[in-house]
Amino acid sequence: MFRFFTTPESISGNLITLSEEDSKHIRSLRLRPDEQFFVCDGEGTDYICTLGKREDCSVADIIDKQKSSGEPTITCRVFIAFTQGERLDYAVQKSVELGVNEIILFESERCVSVPRDIPKKIARLQRIALETAKLANRGKVPTVSSCGKFAEMVDKAVSISDFTIFFYESEDDLHIKSVLEKQFPSDRKSEEHSTKSVSLITGPVGGFEAHEVEYAKSKQIPVVSLGPRILRAETAPSVALATIMYQTGNL
Amino acid sequence: MFRFFTTPESISGNLITLSEEDSKHIRSLRLRPDEQFFVCDGEGTDYICTLGKREDCSVADIIDKQKSSGEPTITCRVFIAFTQGERLDYAVQKSVELGVNEIILFESERCVSVPRDIPKKIARLQRIALETAKLANRGKVPTVSSCGKFAEMVDKAVSISDFTIFFYESEDDLHIKSVLEKQFPSDRKSEEHSTKSVSLITGPVGGFEAHEVEYAKSKQIPVVSLGPRILRAETAPSVALATIMYQTGNL
Repeated sequence: MFRFFTTPESISGNLITLSEEDSKHIRSLRLRPDEQFFVCDGEGTDYICTLGKREDCSVADIIDKQKSSGEPTITCRVFIAFTQGERLDYAVQKSVELGVNEIILFESERCVSVPRDIPKKIARLQRIALETAKLANRGKVPTVSSCGKFAEMVDKAVSISDFTIFFYESEDDLHIKSVLEKQFPSDRKSEEHSTKSVSLITGPVGGFEAHEVEYAKSKQIPVVSLGPRILRAETAPSVALATIMYQTGNL
Repeated sequence: MFRFFTTPESISGNLITLSEEDSKHIRSLRLRPDEQFFVCDGEGTDYICTLGKREDCSVADIIDKQKSSGEPTITCRVFIAFTQGERLDYAVQKSVELGVNEIILFESERCVSVPRDIPKKIARLQRIALETAKLANRGKVPTVSSCGKFAEMVDKAVSISDFTIFFYESEDDLHIKSVLEKQFPSDRKSEEHSTKSVSLITGPVGGFEAHEVEYAKSKQIPVVSLGPRILRAETAPSVALATIMYQTGNL
């Protein structure tokens, strides 16, 4: 079933006012008057709707509603270093498919391509997040933003989540499984875990500088390996998310 | 350090004869005579080499050797339904990064784009597997092949691995974590697991047909969910691999 996002303010009684863009999209789909589609309020509720006989497709009738089923029990924020265009598109798309809550871009020492027009880049990635959320059965559209340089990013990561993990390709000893099994014991239900939110930090093409790793360690952040193979910069965020979703019972 | 693959036959005493293609690539890198690089025999050994003063770069001196560190303890084979060009490229690349042993393509009911020239397509994907294996620190180059239609594929998947998992987006009850925790208990070391090889089957854009799912069930293959979000066809293989590598201590 097709899926659209709206805001709670657009819902009034049994009617949802659709955005101009969604109206246009829905017109192009040529749905039958009784054909159902989802409109999600982005806050945990999916409305099952039909168009009725309205030809301009600007308003939908609510037939029923249900809890959005695609949201994980854990809030995951990924902090991704700026990297070349397509790689970042990919990292955003896969993170949304895997249930990320928020994507925050940052600049680190070895970033070779920080976009000149960051707001434009963010807008483009936000668009990818929206389109992916529709197809991936998400109950909210993850936000995409940026937060400046490395040290600022680390401080933010620590301050907004209960737990932070720093992924480093040259780490050999501390493996993600031992970290997650300790933080999210398998013998407890996901709602019983005291850690409700996680910040995941992954590096640019070429990896982190040693002094960046030291800075993370100085903030008591575990510096963790994602295995003996080298994952590309755009692959690491989705693999990190997959492991958390798996360990917390969200896969 | 740069990494190349060779065959055991090209190694003789302390010398490795490089392929014409690798020689050309190495020439373009303009390495110093004492600059080290890896040549991997594809069977578990990495040779640390230098060029010495040979200007044609066709032969390398072996300085030392070590066990390849990138190979997982479990043999994973992914069976991926044919899908449009770029998606398949991506699925192959990510599967290699995540430690797959073998990639086998198949045709299922809802496949909308089976390539006309399958051998040409396979050759292209094998090339992607090789280039990815070099960058991902793999100790072997995963093979890419195809195996015909759905039923044939299922029979092959079951016959060549100890355990097979069928991923289905409409499955709600059986989750990957419960299946893997049973098959690979966390309290045992990875080398103690009796399951040494796994076949993972993932579907095309649009998913599997109900009768295909029934066929898999009739072969006693567990039909398993990868979570309440809908993963794109090219994302599912790498997420499936990530969960297995995680559970078996290979991440």
